[in-house]
Amino acid sequence: MPNRKPLEKFEPFPKSEFEGRIERLRRVMRRQSLDAILVSAEANFKYLTGFATQNAWSIPARPWFFVVPLEGEPVAVIPEGGREGYQRTSWTPNMRSWMSPNPRDEGVSLLAETLSNLPRRFGRIGAELGAESRMWMPVGDFLRLREMILAREFVDGQAAMREVRLQKSAREVGRIRAMCRIACDAFDALPSFVEPGDTERDVYRKMQSEMLLAGATRVQFMACVSGPGGYENIIGEPSDRVLARGDIMIIDTGGVYGDYFCDFDRNFCWGPPPEQVKRAHEVLYRATEAALAAARPGARASDLWRAQARTIDEGGWPVSTIGRMGHGLGMNLTEPPSVKEDDETELIEGMVVTIEPSTKYGPNFMFVHEENVVITADGCDLLTRRAPRELPVIPS
Amino acid sequence: MPNRKPLEKFEPFPKSEFEGRIERLRRVMRRQSLDAILVSAEANFKYLTGFATQNAWSIPARPWFFVVPLEGEPVAVIPEGGREGYQRTSWTPNMRSWMSPNPRDEGVSLLAETLSNLPRRFGRIGAELGAESRMWMPVGDFLRLREMILAREFVDGQAAMREVRLQKSAREVGRIRAMCRIACDAFDALPSFVEPGDTERDVYRKMQSEMLLAGATRVQFMACVSGPGGYENIIGEPSDRVLARGDIMIIDTGGVYGDYFCDFDRNFCWGPPPEQVKRAHEVLYRATEAALAAARPGARASDLWRAQARTIDEGGWPVSTIGRMGHGLGMNLTEPPSVKEDDETELIEGMVVTIEPSTKYGPNFMFVHEENVVITADGCDLLTRRAPRELPVIPS
Repeated sequence: MPNRKPLEKFEPFPKSEFEGRIERLRRVMRRQSLDAILVSAEANFKYLTGFATQNAWSIPARPWFFVVPLEGEPVAVIPEGGREGYQRTSWTPNMRSWMSPNPRDEGVSLLAETLSNLPRRFGRIGAELGAESRMWMPVGDFLRLREMILAREFVDGQAAMREVRLQKSAREVGRIRAMCRIACDAFDALPSFVEPGDTERDVYRKMQSEMLLAGATRVQFMACVSGPGGYENIIGEPSDRVLARGDIMIIDTGGVYGDYFCDFDRNFCWGPPPEQVKRAHEVLYRATEAALAAARPGARASDLWRAQARTIDEGGWPVSTIGRMGHGLGMNLTEPPSVKEDDETELIEGMVVTIEPSTKYGPNFMFVHEENVVITADGCDLLTRRAPRELPVIPS
Repeated sequence: MPNRKPLEKFEPFPKSEFEGRIERLRRVMRRQSLDAILVSAEANFKYLTGFATQNAWSIPARPWFFVVPLEGEPVAVIPEGGREGYQRTSWTPNMRSWMSPNPRDEGVSLLAETLSNLPRRFGRIGAELGAESRMWMPVGDFLRLREMILAREFVDGQAAMREVRLQKSAREVGRIRAMCRIACDAFDALPSFVEPGDTERDVYRKMQSEMLLAGATRVQFMACVSGPGGYENIIGEPSDRVLARGDIMIIDTGGVYGDYFCDFDRNFCWGPPPEQVKRAHEVLYRATEAALAAARPGARASDLWRAQARTIDEGGWPVSTIGRMGHGLGMNLTEPPSVKEDDETELIEGMVVTIEPSTKYGPNFMFVHEENVVITADGCDLLTRRAPRELPVIPS
């Protein structure tokens, strides 16, 4: 297993990046009359603290909390064993800790005390309650916390986090771009490492390995689905079926580079594609072009949906019923907004979204494309290398 | 990238495996007076349904619910776009779905209706509220759900899930054993793929790649930490520091094979180890032996802790303050019980636990070992290949 070309040095974000985030968050908190925001979910916690770890959020015994008051120092409330790692990687040293695991009081009373001691102005604390939030503590503990500090009301804080995280900094975009490049290189190399007799699982593990050797921090998810003439879904696990002439395969992947995701797919055909598949590829290629042309500040998420839907519809194809044709992208694999007929989120410079047109052909076959873009001052920039105009063919 | 030896064929669990789980769960539900259990967390959902997907729980826009009533068919309440994948891989076809994403009503009213229509006996529904639970829906939606079905009380259902998941079937143990073997092979190969000039990141990505090519489904987490004379933590991300003579490195990894984790570490030394490190390695080796000797049905999690702590203490070393020295293992990287002085969980046949002694030397250095075992009728079986008696040395 030789080293490939040396990886670029990994650049941690400077303190100013995080100070900027806190400042923007506080502007929203003031507008929403919040005394403090409490976060526990991995992406929210890491976004605000810069804490670098891979396994902390795989250990349900130990929650991690971060509290941002309207004024004064933010404070991390974390398991004792995490102090050293937190201190070494976070920009903000202020922390309190408890000896964990302790299921009888898993940080709850320490957190209650921390929140109770904050200056009281509006009497409202933002917690992860709203759309697309996932609180990372037992809900029973949250309900207990709520009883312990009745003097304050817990209201939704996820909307504020959403608003701040929506607009990516140049450094964040750089991470996503790096991850997209790594995955594009691996997709380009795929025809060279696929061998006759390979199963879905073989291709899947080689593709993951390729992404890691090219510099991905982690491959969080990979769907690899194939079938004679097409595939029926894009969320499946790879199987032991051997790929053969006539198969269509899709790989969709969420790789992580320094806490930031890519999320896009590529299609491959074993032997020459049937006419129907060529035409499905063509119409989705054009649907993506339409969305790329529509993506600019001031347009809405729904405009990207309509641009794609119109192209697919005018091509005489059914618009997919997956529920959306793209979404936000960042420290989560999928973030707001949804590229959807009724999502009126306005696109702003620095927002990163996926463009993901899909259609159906035959009774069971679906076809999906996906690209990742960042909204710029007057349009958008592709972060992925554009999918090939012609469906790539694996000699077979 | 040549294919290694062919992977074993992956065997999905038969329907009887899941029927057995539901039957055992219902016995606990009856004892705890629960009309139904509602789950949403990935491990709970997959444990009960067998649903195979990698990305569904990376998409916060779309929650997945599974309801097990005391009698009658369980029902999945899931996003419309997931029907095909769910139907194809789950043992239980009964499902209801809504068009998702729909942040205004993300499955909540459909779930409320489903729960309201269940036969009422105790008036209590178990939800993921208790220790080590993580509900996978917005907490705001759960609070709304609670208001919508006031006729029933939501109580903790995680304790029941914990009790059922604690005892692994032979098939579950087989998955964990397969993952341990894959990671052991990769650790054994490590000295052969490390090259002069490699950084932590180089070793880390080669190790992940090795595990994937050997058959791991996914590498969920890998800590790779090193330093001259020792390491300060075991949760760090790999850095760009070049490994050199005198360095001690630990890799701790949670690889996944068919939804089941391994979780263990190995230490390596660049060049001959200092006397102090040799002795730390020796005392932890013996602490593990003591825990292996103590692990049998009827012993308690705390007995494993005491066996390790006594050996470390008698060796004249400080017992680590990480908070525990092992934990349960299965569909989560860490599960109950905690191998901890005050965790009185009784070990039973089929329970899988990690044995993870740790100590400190010098002001900043910690040292950690870890093995995975399954409790048998009269003792325990190692699932990992025992760490080498002598610290492996990378020529340098």
